[in-house]
Amino acid sequence: MPRRRCRSCSASSTDWEPCVLLEPTYFGDIDPPQRLLMGPGPVNAHPRVLRAMAADLLGQFDPEMTGYMEQVMALYRPVFGTRNRWTLLVNGTARAGIEAALASLVEPGDTVLVVDFGRFGLLLTEILQRIGARIETVSAPWGEVVPMEAIAAAIARCGPKVVACVHGDTSTTMAQPLEGFGALCRAAGAWSYVDATATIGGMELAADRWEVDVMTGGLQKCLGGPSGSAPITISDYAAERIFARRHVEQGIRSAADHDGAGPRIGSNYFDLAMIMDYWSEKRLNHHTEATSMLYAARECARVALSEGLEARYARHRKAGAAMTAGLRAMGLTVFGSDAHRMANVTGVHVPEGVDGEAIRTMMREVFEIEIGTAFGPLQGRIWRIGAMGYNAMQHKVLITLGALEASLKANGFRLPLGEAVPAAIAAWEAA
Amino acid sequence: MPRRRCRSCSASSTDWEPCVLLEPTYFGDIDPPQRLLMGPGPVNAHPRVLRAMAADLLGQFDPEMTGYMEQVMALYRPVFGTRNRWTLLVNGTARAGIEAALASLVEPGDTVLVVDFGRFGLLLTEILQRIGARIETVSAPWGEVVPMEAIAAAIARCGPKVVACVHGDTSTTMAQPLEGFGALCRAAGAWSYVDATATIGGMELAADRWEVDVMTGGLQKCLGGPSGSAPITISDYAAERIFARRHVEQGIRSAADHDGAGPRIGSNYFDLAMIMDYWSEKRLNHHTEATSMLYAARECARVALSEGLEARYARHRKAGAAMTAGLRAMGLTVFGSDAHRMANVTGVHVPEGVDGEAIRTMMREVFEIEIGTAFGPLQGRIWRIGAMGYNAMQHKVLITLGALEASLKANGFRLPLGEAVPAAIAAWEAA
Repeated sequence: MPRRRCRSCSASSTDWEPCVLLEPTYFGDIDPPQRLLMGPGPVNAHPRVLRAMAADLLGQFDPEMTGYMEQVMALYRPVFGTRNRWTLLVNGTARAGIEAALASLVEPGDTVLVVDFGRFGLLLTEILQRIGARIETVSAPWGEVVPMEAIAAAIARCGPKVVACVHGDTSTTMAQPLEGFGALCRAAGAWSYVDATATIGGMELAADRWEVDVMTGGLQKCLGGPSGSAPITISDYAAERIFARRHVEQGIRSAADHDGAGPRIGSNYFDLAMIMDYWSEKRLNHHTEATSMLYAARECARVALSEGLEARYARHRKAGAAMTAGLRAMGLTVFGSDAHRMANVTGVHVPEGVDGEAIRTMMREVFEIEIGTAFGPLQGRIWRIGAMGYNAMQHKVLITLGALEASLKANGFRLPLGEAVPAAIAAWEAA
Repeated sequence: MPRRRCRSCSASSTDWEPCVLLEPTYFGDIDPPQRLLMGPGPVNAHPRVLRAMAADLLGQFDPEMTGYMEQVMALYRPVFGTRNRWTLLVNGTARAGIEAALASLVEPGDTVLVVDFGRFGLLLTEILQRIGARIETVSAPWGEVVPMEAIAAAIARCGPKVVACVHGDTSTTMAQPLEGFGALCRAAGAWSYVDATATIGGMELAADRWEVDVMTGGLQKCLGGPSGSAPITISDYAAERIFARRHVEQGIRSAADHDGAGPRIGSNYFDLAMIMDYWSEKRLNHHTEATSMLYAARECARVALSEGLEARYARHRKAGAAMTAGLRAMGLTVFGSDAHRMANVTGVHVPEGVDGEAIRTMMREVFEIEIGTAFGPLQGRIWRIGAMGYNAMQHKVLITLGALEASLKANGFRLPLGEAVPAAIAAWEAA
């Protein structure tokens, strides 16, 4: 773009700086294409969730607002499979929830064991390094999960204060089994953390039965909402450790406020002790709650609970089974261990001689369907195709398979035609 | 609330844990009262902003999505009064923007001078302590601002690496003059940071003219949007310091990625080097951009720019002048220095013998109008009455004054009746 000078102001435009007044049409109404998002997330939000965000705002200590906060706490308990009092929202994306959990639970110098089987396990180590933890890992190759015996052995070896694990890692499409995980940690005197961003609302979470101390999620995958709010649940056992690090800001401190004896949490924004005080009857001022995102989070949970969690998990299982069967009927090779596949996202090898990005571009430009690329060692090697939340529906799986078949054919790849759709329907019914 | 056992599940309800199935009506559609929010923020969002959030989501690397990100960068440059390339959004509330700025700009052990004249100056010190900065302050009593000569003297005394200042501190309703502030810092070899949460979109920001390096804001005050997205602008001079601390995550690292030589930023989520890489043509994956909040931020800026920034600042000045005149015509005493009052929020003393909370309750319950209480040393002593963004309108100022007059009278306070509204109209016209 050549540099031009704006007639209405002194600015000139460059390729990274279009002048608002030079390019008025470029800044028209929000009007995104109605794209079907069948990648690893974000996915299309449920229309009820989008509408909920259009409601009027409320003051943050308004009784109507604190009433909605109480409701959010109650609505997310069944979603996490817990009776934990401390079930609330962190104001940021799913990654904000992860960092809030780890920054508040882990003290600098603590040994933390990370169960690592993909990019999001590596993310946990990356966040923990910055917190100043001593990190130990127990790993599986991408496409597998970590056996519970390996976790037990690693705990015995390193004596961690905290054990951190991802539930479903979209980078590899694997879901780590967690039955017995928390009990193993507790028996060794460790707190446990689980990142359930990619599974919340789509695969069963059972924080209480798994005896997991802290678990976090996000809205933009199986809950069918927008990114930007991170549900979290915290056991009383973890809350005790976190409150020992409580610190009340000078600007709002009163004589009745006492700080905890533990080392101060390294972040103000992610200080769960302060956030819990804000969500408790104390209503101690912290951030200004993101009201529209709270409305969205509330509606996501209402949609999920009115469908019924069991029915919702079954729908995701059916969608995953249908997608997998359809891809195989096309002659493609599905990535990773069959025994531990996530219900809601499927990895599939880009066939030899096919340009994966050309297929993704045709899918997007001709069919308005997005499928995902991959990270790190899998970049260019697999596509990741999701069916989650509002998109875990039979017709969306079938449309995606049909479009992929046509795109592969158009790009010169020879494959069995017309087989994917009936295979997917049969698998949906059988699952 | 007595404990009851739910007929449909094993849960029992307590006062903090209503069972979702016990209380179905309690969890009905989002339906907040249409309350007029005339406190220090959040305020009512502009209807166009609420509608923008209902648009369909997009994948985070979709060309349509990255196009919207580019537009947001361009739209916020005039709002901040800058030509800084690095003008973007932090995904969280205004406080997230503050922490991202300080965590990325300040290295542990750096001396940071905080210009402190209220609760939000104290918040800067609180965040900086956790980052590990050596903190020096130059303070003014609540209700005044810090003279530029005092800032100059403090810089000369302590030789800071960074100087941090709040623009408008809603806790005291004072606005710190910033003409010459950044130049003073640069002359001393220091980077400057300004928290403009409470003034962005309502009072002039001039990042370039003030030579301020990093400035952050929020949507929920004069920009008339919901809390949950923090616009930020970063000078090239600051970006250079921040990129020296760049670190690429292991899970997405390629051979071409090199880390900077500086100490790693203490937070992953608030690592502006990574966030800038995400907002650049590199599109390096970090968080999943909060799409609906980005739509909201974009619409806030469009509304502001289509009104015209000068006209918008004038409207806020008129609203503040009208509110102040109306309160004085009622015989009330306005808090703080007249010379440095924020345009958009006015502090007023709770008169002797009046229960401030009873007035606020009557305002809310009878008139559906929220006015603000106060923090720390001013708690119970002043109300804070805002007129910002979509609410900085003459009729909303007048309605608020009329309701306050009636509430004071109903609570037995003797005051001149019928004087506030004409005084406010006259002040609006004269301002």
